[in-house]
Amino acid sequence: MNGANRANRMVNTMTEQERDFDTVTVGLGDRSYDIIIGHGLLDKACDWIKPLLHEPSTIIVTDENVAKYHLDPLKETLEKSGITVQSIVVPAGEKSKSLTVFADVCEQILKIGVHRKSTLIALGGGVIGDLVGYVSASLLRGIDFIQIPTTLLAQVDSSVGGKTGINAQAGKNLIGAFHQPKLVLIDCDTLDSLPMREMRSGYAEVLKYGAIDNFTFFEWLETNGQSVLDGHKENRHYAIKTSVESKSRIVSADEKENGIRALLNLGHTFGHALENTTGYDNRLYHGEAVAIGMVMAHALSVELGTCDGQDVKRLVSHLEAIGLPTSLDYVSDIHWKTEDLVQIMRKDKKNIGDTMTFIVSKGIGNAFIVRDVDVSKVEFVLNQFVK
Amino acid sequence: MNGANRANRMVNTMTEQERDFDTVTVGLGDRSYDIIIGHGLLDKACDWIKPLLHEPSTIIVTDENVAKYHLDPLKETLEKSGITVQSIVVPAGEKSKSLTVFADVCEQILKIGVHRKSTLIALGGGVIGDLVGYVSASLLRGIDFIQIPTTLLAQVDSSVGGKTGINAQAGKNLIGAFHQPKLVLIDCDTLDSLPMREMRSGYAEVLKYGAIDNFTFFEWLETNGQSVLDGHKENRHYAIKTSVESKSRIVSADEKENGIRALLNLGHTFGHALENTTGYDNRLYHGEAVAIGMVMAHALSVELGTCDGQDVKRLVSHLEAIGLPTSLDYVSDIHWKTEDLVQIMRKDKKNIGDTMTFIVSKGIGNAFIVRDVDVSKVEFVLNQFVK
Repeated sequence: MNGANRANRMVNTMTEQERDFDTVTVGLGDRSYDIIIGHGLLDKACDWIKPLLHEPSTIIVTDENVAKYHLDPLKETLEKSGITVQSIVVPAGEKSKSLTVFADVCEQILKIGVHRKSTLIALGGGVIGDLVGYVSASLLRGIDFIQIPTTLLAQVDSSVGGKTGINAQAGKNLIGAFHQPKLVLIDCDTLDSLPMREMRSGYAEVLKYGAIDNFTFFEWLETNGQSVLDGHKENRHYAIKTSVESKSRIVSADEKENGIRALLNLGHTFGHALENTTGYDNRLYHGEAVAIGMVMAHALSVELGTCDGQDVKRLVSHLEAIGLPTSLDYVSDIHWKTEDLVQIMRKDKKNIGDTMTFIVSKGIGNAFIVRDVDVSKVEFVLNQFVK
Repeated sequence: MNGANRANRMVNTMTEQERDFDTVTVGLGDRSYDIIIGHGLLDKACDWIKPLLHEPSTIIVTDENVAKYHLDPLKETLEKSGITVQSIVVPAGEKSKSLTVFADVCEQILKIGVHRKSTLIALGGGVIGDLVGYVSASLLRGIDFIQIPTTLLAQVDSSVGGKTGINAQAGKNLIGAFHQPKLVLIDCDTLDSLPMREMRSGYAEVLKYGAIDNFTFFEWLETNGQSVLDGHKENRHYAIKTSVESKSRIVSADEKENGIRALLNLGHTFGHALENTTGYDNRLYHGEAVAIGMVMAHALSVELGTCDGQDVKRLVSHLEAIGLPTSLDYVSDIHWKTEDLVQIMRKDKKNIGDTMTFIVSKGIGNAFIVRDVDVSKVEFVLNQFVK
C-alpha cells in the first residue's frame, strides 16, 4: 500500500466535519504521495505520519530558527502517539545546503542508527527540505522522508516534486537527486511566525503558477494577494492549495523535467543569474529574484513577439502593489552587467549544448518553453534593466 | 532509443568474424544497458561509447594506478574518433570513496563544465566505479555514466547493477544511490596488469555465483579456476561472462534489492564484519573477506540444518587450492571476538528491526535468504572460527 492509499484510508474514517484540510495527490505510480493542506495540522501530525512509518520511530531534521517555534510541539505530538523521536538541528540559512552539512547530517543519522525502512522528517523551509531530501535519497541508497514545510516558498514550491539537493562552489542545487517524499504536511499556521519579507518571497512563486497557466488565479491574486500575505486564513489556504495543485499536476506529468516541468522555471533562469551575482546573500531573496526574473521573462517574450507590453505592465503593477521588486534598482550596490548575467545563464542546467533555453509567455497565464533563444535578444532585454 | 538498442544496432553492422566479444543485456526497461565482454576492447572503446554520447565530449575519472596503464590509450582511441576528452585522476585505494573526494570530484567536473546530457566514464576498479557512479547520480540530479572496470572484482561484481556509493565513518557504502550505467565495457586484457592477490580477491566473487545458484559453474571452476587466474584467455572470458550473466539476471529481477538480489550478499554479512574489524586495510581484501564469509555462511547453514558438512569441506578445499583464505588465522594480529563481530553485523543494511538476515545455503549452488536467524546460532558458528 503506497503513501497516498494509506492516507486516503485514514481520511475516510473521518467525518466531513473533521476534514478541515485538503488533500492533493501527486500521482507517480508506486511513488505517489499526498499533500495535506490545512490549519493547525502540526498538532495532529501523528494522524498522517504514524500510518506511514514502518516502525514507531523517526528522526526530525530542522534548523535553529524553526526549532524554536515548531520542534518541541511536533516532537510532543508524535511522542504522545507512541513514536520515538530523535532530532538534529542545523544552522539556519543557505549555508546549510553545503557538502559539509550534508556529510555531517548523514554521519549524525548513521550514528543514531538507521535502516532501509527508516523515515526522516524535514521540518523547515526550502533549505531543510532540499538538504534532508538529498540526505534521504543518499542514506543506504534511499530511505523514506516526510516534508513539513514551514515557509510559504517551501509549501508552494520546494517541498513538492522530489527535487532535492545542495549547492556546489560552482552554483546552487548542482548536486542532488530526484527523491519524492512520502507525505507533504502543510500547516498554514506555521506562516504566522514568518517575517513579511520571506512571505513576499514565497508569494512570487504563488504568482508564478498564475503566470504559467492559470490566468483566473492570477486575477484572483490581483484582488486577494495582499490578504494572503496579511494572514487571511481562507485565502491563504486557497492560494497554497491552488499552487500545490498546479505543481502536483506538472510534476505528475513530467517528474524528471524532460518536458513541461521546465515551465516551473518561469523567471528562474534570469532569477538564478541575479542571485548568483549577489552571491546568494540577503540582498536578494530567491522569490525576489524570481519576481524580477518573471518581469524579464515577459520582457523577453515581448522582444520575441509572443507577448504584449501590456502584460509586462500588468505583472509589474501587481508585484509593486505586493511590495516585490521588479527591477535591478532593488540591489543598487551592484554594478550589473549584461555580459556577466549572460555568462552565468549559459551554465543553466536546462541548457544543452550551445542553445539557451527560456520559459517565456504568450501572455499572462500562457507560458511556454523555447529551446533556442538568440543571445542577442537576451542581451537586448537585459540592457533595458541594467541601464 | 535506449543504450541497449543503440549498441545492438551497432553490433548488427559487424560481421560474425569481428564479433570477438559477448554482449549481456541488463533488462531494466528504459534503463536497460549492455555489458560487453572481450579482449582488446579498450583499443576500440569508441565503437561502443561514441553511439551513446549525446555530444562528442566526455570526462574520464580514474585513479593514479589505473591511469598509468590505461588512461592515455583510452583517451587516444576516443580522441581519434573525434571525442573531446577531459580526465580527473584521484588517489588509488578505498580512501577515495570518501565524502571529501566525492565533493572534490563533483566540483572538478562542474568546473570543467557539465550539463544534463553529459556522460562520465569510470575507468578503474570498484572504488572508481562506486565513486563515479554516485557522482553521476548526484551531479545535476543524475547524468549518464559508463563503466570500464579494470579489476576482476569490478568486472564481475561492482560495475554491474547500479549500486553506487561512498563510505561513511559509520561504515562502508552507507551513502549512495541506485544509478545504472549506460554501458559496461569489460576488456579482459586489463587484468594482465593486475597483481595476483587482487585477481584472487575478485575470484571469490566469481566463485560466489557458482555457490549461489550455479553448481555446474562451481564444478567448472574447481577444474578451471586456476587457469582463469593464470590468464587463460578463453577461460577468463568464460568465467567473467558467466558471472556477469548471473549478476545481470538477478539485478533485472530485483533492481532495488527488495528480494532475491540479497542473494548476491552470500558471504558478505560475515565478510563485511571482518573487513570492518580490520578497518578495511590491506590485511584483508574484500574478496578475501568474502571467501572466509562464504565458509562461515555455509557453516551457519550446517548449524541451521540446511546444508551438509561435506559442502563446507568442498568449498574450503577449492578456496585453499586457489590460495584464498578460509579462516581467521589469515589475519593473525587481530584478537577476533564473536561479540564484536555480532555487534557489527547487527548494523547491516539488510537487517530490519531486531532480526538478523543471512544468505545461507541448502548445498553449493543453492543459496537462499533467511530473515530471522537466531543470534545464538551465529555466535556458535563464529566461536568455531574465533577459537
